[in-house]
Amino acid sequence: MAATNKLIIFDTSLRDGEQTPGVTLNTEEKIIIATQLSKLGVDVLEAGFPIASQGDFEAVQRIAREVGPLMEGREKVGQPMTICGLARATEGDIKRCAEAIADAPRKRIHVFLATSDLHLEHKLKIDRETCVKRAVAMVTLAKSLVDDIEFSPEDAGRSDPDFLCQVLGAVIEAGATTLNIPDTVGYNLPHEYGKLIKYLVDHVKGADKVTFSTHCHNDLGLATANTLAGIQNGARQVEVTINGIGERAGNTAMEEVVMAIHTHPALFPVHHTINTELFYPTSRIVAETSGLVVQRNKAIVGRNAFLHESGIHQDGVLKNRSTYEIMTPASVGVTDIALVLGKHSGRNALRSRGAEMGFTLNDVAFQRVFEDFKALCDSKKNVSDDDVRAIFEKENHPIVAL
Amino acid sequence: MAATNKLIIFDTSLRDGEQTPGVTLNTEEKIIIATQLSKLGVDVLEAGFPIASQGDFEAVQRIAREVGPLMEGREKVGQPMTICGLARATEGDIKRCAEAIADAPRKRIHVFLATSDLHLEHKLKIDRETCVKRAVAMVTLAKSLVDDIEFSPEDAGRSDPDFLCQVLGAVIEAGATTLNIPDTVGYNLPHEYGKLIKYLVDHVKGADKVTFSTHCHNDLGLATANTLAGIQNGARQVEVTINGIGERAGNTAMEEVVMAIHTHPALFPVHHTINTELFYPTSRIVAETSGLVVQRNKAIVGRNAFLHESGIHQDGVLKNRSTYEIMTPASVGVTDIALVLGKHSGRNALRSRGAEMGFTLNDVAFQRVFEDFKALCDSKKNVSDDDVRAIFEKENHPIVAL
Repeated sequence: MAATNKLIIFDTSLRDGEQTPGVTLNTEEKIIIATQLSKLGVDVLEAGFPIASQGDFEAVQRIAREVGPLMEGREKVGQPMTICGLARATEGDIKRCAEAIADAPRKRIHVFLATSDLHLEHKLKIDRETCVKRAVAMVTLAKSLVDDIEFSPEDAGRSDPDFLCQVLGAVIEAGATTLNIPDTVGYNLPHEYGKLIKYLVDHVKGADKVTFSTHCHNDLGLATANTLAGIQNGARQVEVTINGIGERAGNTAMEEVVMAIHTHPALFPVHHTINTELFYPTSRIVAETSGLVVQRNKAIVGRNAFLHESGIHQDGVLKNRSTYEIMTPASVGVTDIALVLGKHSGRNALRSRGAEMGFTLNDVAFQRVFEDFKALCDSKKNVSDDDVRAIFEKENHPIVAL
Repeated sequence: MAATNKLIIFDTSLRDGEQTPGVTLNTEEKIIIATQLSKLGVDVLEAGFPIASQGDFEAVQRIAREVGPLMEGREKVGQPMTICGLARATEGDIKRCAEAIADAPRKRIHVFLATSDLHLEHKLKIDRETCVKRAVAMVTLAKSLVDDIEFSPEDAGRSDPDFLCQVLGAVIEAGATTLNIPDTVGYNLPHEYGKLIKYLVDHVKGADKVTFSTHCHNDLGLATANTLAGIQNGARQVEVTINGIGERAGNTAMEEVVMAIHTHPALFPVHHTINTELFYPTSRIVAETSGLVVQRNKAIVGRNAFLHESGIHQDGVLKNRSTYEIMTPASVGVTDIALVLGKHSGRNALRSRGAEMGFTLNDVAFQRVFEDFKALCDSKKNVSDDDVRAIFEKENHPIVAL
């Protein structure tokens, strides 16, 4: 492992993310997203899988040419984004990939080959020896075309660790500089995944010369925890997507991993160069172009992530925000947050909203307002500011019984 | 800790889940959800916060009367669902709660009081000594009304562990039988949360007579991992919601925790009595009644959770489902799954879909179909079965150039 504490953020929203069933982004949409990811401070962008179709090839080529050189917002990173293309371990895939990324100032080929016995036997129908030979030959070919080579042993999470060491040692010798360890089926638990990364960092021949990378899927809701366990055990690159989009239950969400590190600086021996205040706008762009709705209760970028409804929480937040908040909404680009008034809201939240509207009542009058408010909440899902205003006004100008 | 390996599933969809900003469920909707949760095999249902409003009180009371006695689908559990109500550590809250749940065959009062210095100082404005006294007095009162008492030290994740031990030991003596440890602000990392549970199990006086419980929030995307770490360190109850609904980024999703245990039987020394094949229908009922959309890439219950788009994955799944699946869709109640055809689909998936439609072509003709299919995918987000049929038919009945 290289002696740096920089955590490399590798975004695959346009490759694994675009594999989300039902999503196809056109080239213009991909360029919009890639440009935003460049401003966000992403280190490596996996722009696509050039062999997959003519459209994919052209999108990767245009991103390499048009987004690859951009420097806007990259002051902290200090260099343009590396544009990466995916390739299976075949000559055709690798050459097509090299052609697509040729014009980027910084570029990478990402070669992958499955290493689990299940995949070797049922999918590739090759033995372990053929697997090692093919990996070495294809990394050697890729290295002759581009200097920066990443290799992924697909289904690493279910591969024999000693065979993994053999394959990875061989591809390092052939020129790979990043080794990405995917939990392709989202099966690993955090301590298992962390243990695997540590085992590889400790046992792969030449491990000290390369960067280990995580690639986790969220099938059991553990992608973020697995990725963090990878970092704590020596990984210095994370493969992530915005909003956690991707195949099936998706990939690791970049915003969750970065903010977990951000809020626990003492626990992670790494630093990142992401502009976190661009997370929310970037999430909106990806959601709108992909059509993939972000659920309200999504961590960091969901609409509710910084909303407090219960009266007890609202009361606490009004007294001291840190009672119920571990990061500020502004730190991730959320700027229009208000306490939502509803049936669980308490007196303090209602009084505070009324005061913002210009109403000041004595305690007896306020108690009547509060009771009206609670009765309304039982019958109405959302209590709007207009409703609140009407209740306060009724008390200010009581209807006299004639 | 009690010498049982049963993991108690405590659902709080109707209490913490209903605190989701923008959500208010009416009583009829709550009864529909509670009935479904009873069939699902939930052990303890937190039905609401009776003191919060007259509507909340009535809903808890009706659930206690109408859902509390139900036994349909509970063969594995062997007893009706325990109906629980939430109460702050005040006399009014506790008496109101006891009244609401009175008619349930099995019932529990859940009393909570903050124990972190931050909350004591800024929110409750009391000192530690007053905190212990209040906790003991209120658990004693609750115990005089109902036998099954749960106590939660709110913001336990940021409380001094030794003060926590003091409070918890005192409430055990006063009659609490379940101790719930909330990471109220969703700040803990899995190893920290696991360590806290272990510390309490090892150090609280009387810990061997009670059940420890997890209650995690998903602000950093770590709720499921934290809950699993809690189980591995001695917790035998988990507080969860369907779809992970709840305040801000929500609570731990029941479906994720249960399926993580289900797919890793050797790693968790517990068993559960949930009917997992009801997860998907239960998720749909909660999403539809609450109006909280489940994102497509949500683990287990998202629409895409079992969909494979990439050609490589589709090819693998057709050869052997376990190459890309760690559980069957049917095991969580998903029954209408198909491979989605799109630009990342490969030859095998297209040939298989064509064969299902009755088309068998030679390799040359199929290659033309495949090329037409790829060209269509570049221009169209979703390729429907009708599109696929049209492409195959064109090849079966080629237009002759005149």
